[in-house]
Amino acid sequence: MIDLLIHHATFSRIQSQLRVHAERIRPLVVRAGGAIEAAWGAAFEAELAPQIVFGSIEAYLSPEAPVVMRAVLDAPDLDWFQSSAAGIDHPVLVAIGKRARLYTASHEQAHAIAEWALWQAFDFFRAGAQRREDRAQKIWKRRNAREMTGSTWLIYGFGHIGREIARRVHALGGKAIGVRRSPVRDEHADLIIEPGNVLSHLSQADIVCLCAPFTAETEGLANAAFFAAMREDALFMNVGRGALVVEPDLLAGLERGRPAFAALDVFAAEPLPEESPFWAHPKVAMTPHNSAESEGTRDRVDALFLDNLRRYLAGEGLRNVVPKSAFGG
Amino acid sequence: MIDLLIHHATFSRIQSQLRVHAERIRPLVVRAGGAIEAAWGAAFEAELAPQIVFGSIEAYLSPEAPVVMRAVLDAPDLDWFQSSAAGIDHPVLVAIGKRARLYTASHEQAHAIAEWALWQAFDFFRAGAQRREDRAQKIWKRRNAREMTGSTWLIYGFGHIGREIARRVHALGGKAIGVRRSPVRDEHADLIIEPGNVLSHLSQADIVCLCAPFTAETEGLANAAFFAAMREDALFMNVGRGALVVEPDLLAGLERGRPAFAALDVFAAEPLPEESPFWAHPKVAMTPHNSAESEGTRDRVDALFLDNLRRYLAGEGLRNVVPKSAFGG
Repeated sequence: MIDLLIHHATFSRIQSQLRVHAERIRPLVVRAGGAIEAAWGAAFEAELAPQIVFGSIEAYLSPEAPVVMRAVLDAPDLDWFQSSAAGIDHPVLVAIGKRARLYTASHEQAHAIAEWALWQAFDFFRAGAQRREDRAQKIWKRRNAREMTGSTWLIYGFGHIGREIARRVHALGGKAIGVRRSPVRDEHADLIIEPGNVLSHLSQADIVCLCAPFTAETEGLANAAFFAAMREDALFMNVGRGALVVEPDLLAGLERGRPAFAALDVFAAEPLPEESPFWAHPKVAMTPHNSAESEGTRDRVDALFLDNLRRYLAGEGLRNVVPKSAFGG
Repeated sequence: MIDLLIHHATFSRIQSQLRVHAERIRPLVVRAGGAIEAAWGAAFEAELAPQIVFGSIEAYLSPEAPVVMRAVLDAPDLDWFQSSAAGIDHPVLVAIGKRARLYTASHEQAHAIAEWALWQAFDFFRAGAQRREDRAQKIWKRRNAREMTGSTWLIYGFGHIGREIARRVHALGGKAIGVRRSPVRDEHADLIIEPGNVLSHLSQADIVCLCAPFTAETEGLANAAFFAAMREDALFMNVGRGALVVEPDLLAGLERGRPAFAALDVFAAEPLPEESPFWAHPKVAMTPHNSAESEGTRDRVDALFLDNLRRYLAGEGLRNVVPKSAFGG
């Protein structure tokens, strides 16, 4: 019997699909409040030693998250960890990656993140902040809008997220310049450039969107020179990681007028400290590291886990395996 | 020589393209402040009697609009009027339609209106109003989002605007139910229904969007029964005309929770009176009859006029001719 550690909210959604594996797996369910019980009436009195853990959205973000993470880090024989995230830069995930024999990531959140990017782009092109201010003052004032049609996006990081953004930009009549290390063509990009050529292309972009992972190479990539190369009418977006941006340089850039506006989902310090200028900055829109969360993401990650579980039990290769080397020494 | 009445801002944009017709047309330019002068050094001392008038966006909405409209209505020999609008329900446009030998409309604003609809849909699906309120209070609170992917739209009025909305909804992974009188199939609609069948289909829709013209048949179509048939989690949108909606029924519906929210660009009375509850309603987003206005719309309408002018001078049929009968009597 293989023990699977799973959060109760996740279990509620997928237990009927898990049932087909009832002869081989025993779900250990993290209940509300943190108690752990075996499901389906199975006995569970021994010490907690799951071989499989599903790091679903609730495992990461519910009140029971500390219980799940402690159980994972204490598991003496962790064979496979399925993450609901793409990033592997969080210290807990690095520790899990080092312990687990197999670590699989998820890229299913790319759709929701791409929709977040469109949401922010439309709100910028339509001068949403000004229009809401007009309304608050009962001012009936027509304002000109810019269009997605014919707009140019520079998308820094052209993996799953970048491609989903570019696909939508194309579908809506815009152009996409993708930035990635291997400059091979992509059907969703009008042009792919290497990171070293970004500065000379920034002036083409109405919208500059960061969706690269946090690595030694991407740290602080959006700095004073980067913002100075943007247009005065351009929107800067970050859905990657806060550490990609030199935040004082962004604030100085907004002050000088390049970029015109910033839409941020991620920050150097999270949760954003109360004293951060981003909370009330008039040229900033922000969300709390939340662009990926949607009903669709949740359902797609569940489906990914179930598919990987079937593969695991069948002895097949799993999807989205992160190589051990990615977690360092 | 054919006299063309044109607003100075419009003339500035297209004068180089007009030049090719300089031997046949004489632009009479409405200057800032309202004086009218012939362009290109041509003499102009006679009474104002334009044969052609370009009702561009500035002719409708600049401070000089009354001068243009007065000149059009006084023109003794108005041969062709190019409107920048699709609607012909405004009393001044009806009067022009009755006087002019040829009246041509514009549907070029469909793209901008469709982008307005996406903007409002994303803001609703992402709980934009609540997230901005969270931010104002410095609350770092994750909120779940709904997705455009997999959403269903019911689009009432499946002409130029409805089709442009549906095309984008499809491209983003949603479904579109179109409502129009002639229920012929359309590549951008998953289903086309007749107006009489709307009530039984409303419960399928995450988003219900009105983009029909104002006619005797569409007046007050969104009434108490209509809202009662919508879902509790649905967004109601109006980019058609205010008169399509029974506004007290919409307010009562929002009170009862069907629809969940309304995004309105048009109102029964415009400009919206100061005492209107829509200004400050927490379940309403609004813009001042402005969804069509964009740089793209402006440029597309200019191109339409120039194409029609070429056709006019060549004796060819014009695009978007509105039949005389449409203006009544």
